Amino acid sequence: MQKTEIEKMANRSRKLAKNASIESFVQRWGANRNTCIFASFIFQQFMHFELLTKDTKSKARAGLLQTAHGAIETPIFMPVGTAGSVKGVHQQELRDDVEAQIILGNTYHLFLRPGLDVIESAGGLHQFIGWERPMLTDSGGYQVYSLSGSRKINEEGVKFQSHIDGSYHFFTPERAIDIQRVIGADIIMAFDECTPYPCDYNYAKRSMHMTHRWLKRCMDQMEKTEPKYGYDQSLFPIVQGSVYKDLRVESAETIASHNAPGNAIGGLSVGEPDEDLYEMTDLVCSILPEDKPRYLMGVGTPVNLLECIALGVDMFDCVMPSRNARHGMLFTSEGIINIKNQKWEKDFSPVDPNGTAYVDLVYTKAYLRHLIKAKENLGIQIATIHNLAFYLQLMKKARKEIIAGTFSEWKDKMIPKLNNRL
Amino acid sequence: MQKTEIEKMANRSRKLAKNASIESFVQRWGANRNTCIFASFIFQQFMHFELLTKDTKSKARAGLLQTAHGAIETPIFMPVGTAGSVKGVHQQELRDDVEAQIILGNTYHLFLRPGLDVIESAGGLHQFIGWERPMLTDSGGYQVYSLSGSRKINEEGVKFQSHIDGSYHFFTPERAIDIQRVIGADIIMAFDECTPYPCDYNYAKRSMHMTHRWLKRCMDQMEKTEPKYGYDQSLFPIVQGSVYKDLRVESAETIASHNAPGNAIGGLSVGEPDEDLYEMTDLVCSILPEDKPRYLMGVGTPVNLLECIALGVDMFDCVMPSRNARHGMLFTSEGIINIKNQKWEKDFSPVDPNGTAYVDLVYTKAYLRHLIKAKENLGIQIATIHNLAFYLQLMKKARKEIIAGTFSEWKDKMIPKLNNRL
Repeated sequence: MQKTEIEKMANRSRKLAKNASIESFVQRWGANRNTCIFASFIFQQFMHFELLTKDTKSKARAGLLQTAHGAIETPIFMPVGTAGSVKGVHQQELRDDVEAQIILGNTYHLFLRPGLDVIESAGGLHQFIGWERPMLTDSGGYQVYSLSGSRKINEEGVKFQSHIDGSYHFFTPERAIDIQRVIGADIIMAFDECTPYPCDYNYAKRSMHMTHRWLKRCMDQMEKTEPKYGYDQSLFPIVQGSVYKDLRVESAETIASHNAPGNAIGGLSVGEPDEDLYEMTDLVCSILPEDKPRYLMGVGTPVNLLECIALGVDMFDCVMPSRNARHGMLFTSEGIINIKNQKWEKDFSPVDPNGTAYVDLVYTKAYLRHLIKAKENLGIQIATIHNLAFYLQLMKKARKEIIAGTFSEWKDKMIPKLNNRL
Repeated sequence: MQKTEIEKMANRSRKLAKNASIESFVQRWGANRNTCIFASFIFQQFMHFELLTKDTKSKARAGLLQTAHGAIETPIFMPVGTAGSVKGVHQQELRDDVEAQIILGNTYHLFLRPGLDVIESAGGLHQFIGWERPMLTDSGGYQVYSLSGSRKINEEGVKFQSHIDGSYHFFTPERAIDIQRVIGADIIMAFDECTPYPCDYNYAKRSMHMTHRWLKRCMDQMEKTEPKYGYDQSLFPIVQGSVYKDLRVESAETIASHNAPGNAIGGLSVGEPDEDLYEMTDLVCSILPEDKPRYLMGVGTPVNLLECIALGVDMFDCVMPSRNARHGMLFTSEGIINIKNQKWEKDFSPVDPNGTAYVDLVYTKAYLRHLIKAKENLGIQIATIHNLAFYLQLMKKARKEIIAGTFSEWKDKMIPKLNNRL
């Protein structure tokens, strides 16, 4: 295909997306079409969350999150593209087969490699990696705590050592914002401390208060700086407080008071039991504003996702579908498959007859098993596309059920199947 | 896409291929169309090589090699799919982006993993990996010699130890044929000894004579056995003789005397200087029958390919484009790129503006450099697709130039460019 053709196709896609949005403007506002076209154009430059449906039997919600790079249908799962690539997956596959609507980049990794200079020269991360849809970056905090061998936290920020060359770096809330301005994601995260599990009450409390002070500094820095690439960036603050109810309440109330365009729940999925995850999520969701998207960071299994959607969460990210794919674990609508098991050796049925990605139908379980066992990259590629597509389809289906008013019944039917070991 | 749709598409492609062939029958034979359809159908079950054009200023040839899985336009390069996968490349990409017409599998690897039982249960390697076009398997000899730590050769065959679990196995010429019957490639190779470089004259001579005796055993075994999956398989014998002219002449004459459907040149590209490679290839090509395809095993760089096409070679395979891709070396029509070099750090131009694969245009050099440096699988995938597509396009272009009668001039213009370091 020629470059001009690709550009034409890209433009056509953009136009289609815009028209769809304009129609919804016309429908909703009943205004004259030209006004709507203009309004829609302006609107798209700023993040806007529209709560479309609330489930009556649970706290599940269906929404639409508009960003400068297009709309995101919530609930949504965001594949993790740590260093500017969802491991083993072409951007084209991510768009057409996985049907990802937004992907996540890790500030820590991108800062170290390729570095801000390269990303800024490219015109931001979207341009650098060739991804036209929305993106979110974490603040680097989580990686600094979890990956770095040597780090030192104080009120000012965190000093850490690169896992690549051992060089020293210092991240502050201001620096985390500056870096994320350069990366240029649509949604950027506040710099926080993610406490481990278990975590001493007093440490969790002190850390949470520091995270709140850091948030203030992040917001000030956002005010002081401008987006670098002509489109809006939104800062999501993060609720902390470990598994302590009073701390979670205090943190959620503090975060809610800032009236941010979206809010995140951090410090979970770090080893605590599922009951704690659900209890804290439920508690925090009951305090966070209803008219803003809620993002539960680092969660989780397909079952975790459905349970947390039922508690009012709209956005998720997790390395699980891609990381587990690399070890041959497949998530399907009938249960979990360990493709390395002997039982799949001569199973020449499709990878997932219910799957929606092309890899699900053109490859067999026996072939995928062989590839994973032989450590062939293609095996990782197939399993990753499958798992991510499954996660995205699960979110799509959940959304449909919420809108149809049948989410709770569907969830109750799905949970035992998703927990099944095939 | 639904499975039925995929099947429909596959059938349509097969039909188109058949029709094209029927037209050529009608044109060439002037016979009635129904007769031609029948003849074409029967014909396609057996390998047939048609020499279409001979270059007047060199020994280059353009041909068409018909197999039960479709036609191959020669000269051709065959991507190496060692263990049933061209590393990091989806079958769909191999077909549509690389435009591979035939791929190669390694008997040694496939025998050890997934094993014959699985391949036979799947209905052969084509079915197992989901590749509908032609395939070739080596005999396992080369891998047994080059990969195995511990091996013992005698007249009967070779005892070797698996690189996976250390288990002992014994390959004989008969066993190599039996195994390749189970794998089911369209073209299968005789069991030979590939001598190293440098190689003592007496060893090379003794080994060559044993390879000739082994060939006889392979041919007898071919006679005694039937294809397992209903389509024809053709055995190519292999010329040996190291870099000794008299041995190469003797070997080529022996091989030529068997009137096989195609002939291979082995024991080159094992460390000898390019002059020896070209001298031996030229010598052997002058003896091998003109009306049968000539396959130069394990060669080589883009320059090697053009030089050897000029000497009368029709088929090539080599791990170079895929292996070097994994280290960031890109072959292009303007020269060789080491994408890890600093100079590409902020080069946001397409990977290869002259390339034909989609990866050449949708990704930039700077992004590919980042991916390769960060050891991201996607980098390997992009570089591999690029290099293989480049090799295939180079063959396509060479064929076109041969047919147009301008091959030699074109080759002379290309060689310095291909040798260029960008």
